[in-house]
Amino acid sequence: MRATFMYGAGDVRVEDAPDPVLEQPTDAIVRIVRACICGSDLHPYHNLPASTGGAPMGHEFLGFVEEIGSEVAGLKRGDFVLAPFAYADNTCDFCCEGLHTSCRKGGFWGVGGMGGGQAEAIRVPQAQGTLVNLPVGEDSALLPSLLTLTDVYGTGYHAAKRAKVNPRTTVTVIGDGAVGLLAVLSARQLGAERIILMGRHEERTQIGREFGATDIVPERGQEGIERVRELTGGVGTHTVLEAVGYMSAYEMAVGVVRPGGVISRVGMPQYEEAPIGFTSLFGPNITLTGGPAPVRAYIDELLPGVLEGKVEPGRVFDRTVGLDMVPDGYRAMDRREALKVMVQP
Amino acid sequence: MRATFMYGAGDVRVEDAPDPVLEQPTDAIVRIVRACICGSDLHPYHNLPASTGGAPMGHEFLGFVEEIGSEVAGLKRGDFVLAPFAYADNTCDFCCEGLHTSCRKGGFWGVGGMGGGQAEAIRVPQAQGTLVNLPVGEDSALLPSLLTLTDVYGTGYHAAKRAKVNPRTTVTVIGDGAVGLLAVLSARQLGAERIILMGRHEERTQIGREFGATDIVPERGQEGIERVRELTGGVGTHTVLEAVGYMSAYEMAVGVVRPGGVISRVGMPQYEEAPIGFTSLFGPNITLTGGPAPVRAYIDELLPGVLEGKVEPGRVFDRTVGLDMVPDGYRAMDRREALKVMVQP
Repeated sequence: MRATFMYGAGDVRVEDAPDPVLEQPTDAIVRIVRACICGSDLHPYHNLPASTGGAPMGHEFLGFVEEIGSEVAGLKRGDFVLAPFAYADNTCDFCCEGLHTSCRKGGFWGVGGMGGGQAEAIRVPQAQGTLVNLPVGEDSALLPSLLTLTDVYGTGYHAAKRAKVNPRTTVTVIGDGAVGLLAVLSARQLGAERIILMGRHEERTQIGREFGATDIVPERGQEGIERVRELTGGVGTHTVLEAVGYMSAYEMAVGVVRPGGVISRVGMPQYEEAPIGFTSLFGPNITLTGGPAPVRAYIDELLPGVLEGKVEPGRVFDRTVGLDMVPDGYRAMDRREALKVMVQP
Repeated sequence: MRATFMYGAGDVRVEDAPDPVLEQPTDAIVRIVRACICGSDLHPYHNLPASTGGAPMGHEFLGFVEEIGSEVAGLKRGDFVLAPFAYADNTCDFCCEGLHTSCRKGGFWGVGGMGGGQAEAIRVPQAQGTLVNLPVGEDSALLPSLLTLTDVYGTGYHAAKRAKVNPRTTVTVIGDGAVGLLAVLSARQLGAERIILMGRHEERTQIGREFGATDIVPERGQEGIERVRELTGGVGTHTVLEAVGYMSAYEMAVGVVRPGGVISRVGMPQYEEAPIGFTSLFGPNITLTGGPAPVRAYIDELLPGVLEGKVEPGRVFDRTVGLDMVPDGYRAMDRREALKVMVQP
């Protein structure tokens, strides 16, 4: 099969790779119909050290079940399925608490011997717990929106859920990437009436407006903080959904959160140490939450809205490429010529 | 009157000071019957730069209303009252949300021209919102327990409330000072059945056991972390109540919190930057919360249990001194010869 590997910063290659095979009786093999490139794939694209062994890329995909291990129940060949960006058994204590990203038998695509989703096929461990049957065919117009359930929609939703967004909470969303825009959509779904989107790419913030943002703040840094505070009577918003991951975004979050409020991070932090002492989080009783989204936990909740067409999270895709053009897709997202690139193997 | 001032690290003096007078129509003057020394008073006791102007000390007191400003309703001369460690109008939007420490007209004792509680009398701003009437007299045996409602009991309770402790959550409390012990008591009140207390002073951890701790871990650092993990099937506890404030305590909290769990800090952080990135908080979806406790918000909830004798938080006091002996009280707490010192002016 053909599959995508990264050999170092900026070095993405689509190459021949062995077809995946069942290794455990709990595995399935999925033939991939749609995949995509994630904003988080751009982090290694910027800083992965060069290596002779390529890293399998991609963690968002849907497709057909092609083979099933002997211990996989509830799935059959030919099922059209999607997979969350973390595989999980969906039965352990952490999964039962909705924290599939900490599943005792779980893990992530592309690491520890796992393949990536930007490929023609993939071996899925813990297939029974991981894969979710889709009641549509591969010709469905809903594929882009369904594909967002594998990561970016669930991740935006996780930000909003962890922040306990509700009709009484004001919200700032930091970042106009796919996750930021879907954090806006999620906050709106949870009832928020005031949603300030901090982003400066007009074609993206326009989608943000359509998803529910009431105010757009293109300024950044201290200027952006002051603008949000002006918009909120000087105090900031009850919740801040941080969908970027850079220290500058964290600093903006601290600057615009209301005393007693919540900063919910879903952008992969590109820092380890940060201010959390008296003057930043402690004094004003700020709560800091978030992490990798257990998107599996949210699919049952979010899928009906997608199937009924009540929401259209797939609008974040603005380009589709074939598998061999994946390196171009990375380039386009890195240059911000594309918001999110879908891959059609 | 006589009042306590700190002139630098280790330099506590009880001196003559002008009697407090009403300055605003919203003020009251309180003649202090009991005050105390707080673990947080030991931070300046360790590191306050020497100065020719002393800082008024003490933020926990109860006493009699002696004078009332013209705009103070609901109080009269002779009322026996207590004051939270933050004064507040109890009517602004933050107070209504239970965040009295961020009150728009509020502040703290001993700063910004305010007097301290380790004194014979004090001017109380926002008296109507700040002072709480007590249905007992100055000869009541409940005074020590009532005095804890001004800070340490409410602070321990804040840690537990912010962490959402309930009968299903396992709890680690870090620190066997007065706040740590009252965090144990609070966690038990909120229904926790498994409470691990990390502390190594046996006479204190014994009180912790009586307050509800089920396990005592005297080890610290990595050894302490491993011990708590052993006690919890390798995963740590759902909630960690951090009642110390040093970086070493934060690191222990990160080490013993369960994936998806909550670290709730009420020890005044003696650091500004700390690890919060992928390997500490983000990857395992840890929530960090806490801050200065809005104890005013909890008094209505906690007072009945004290009055009915269901709880006895006043057990944290193990020494009483007269006002002129306050410097000895600081010394005794600093040397850990006393857990918490009550002051009887």
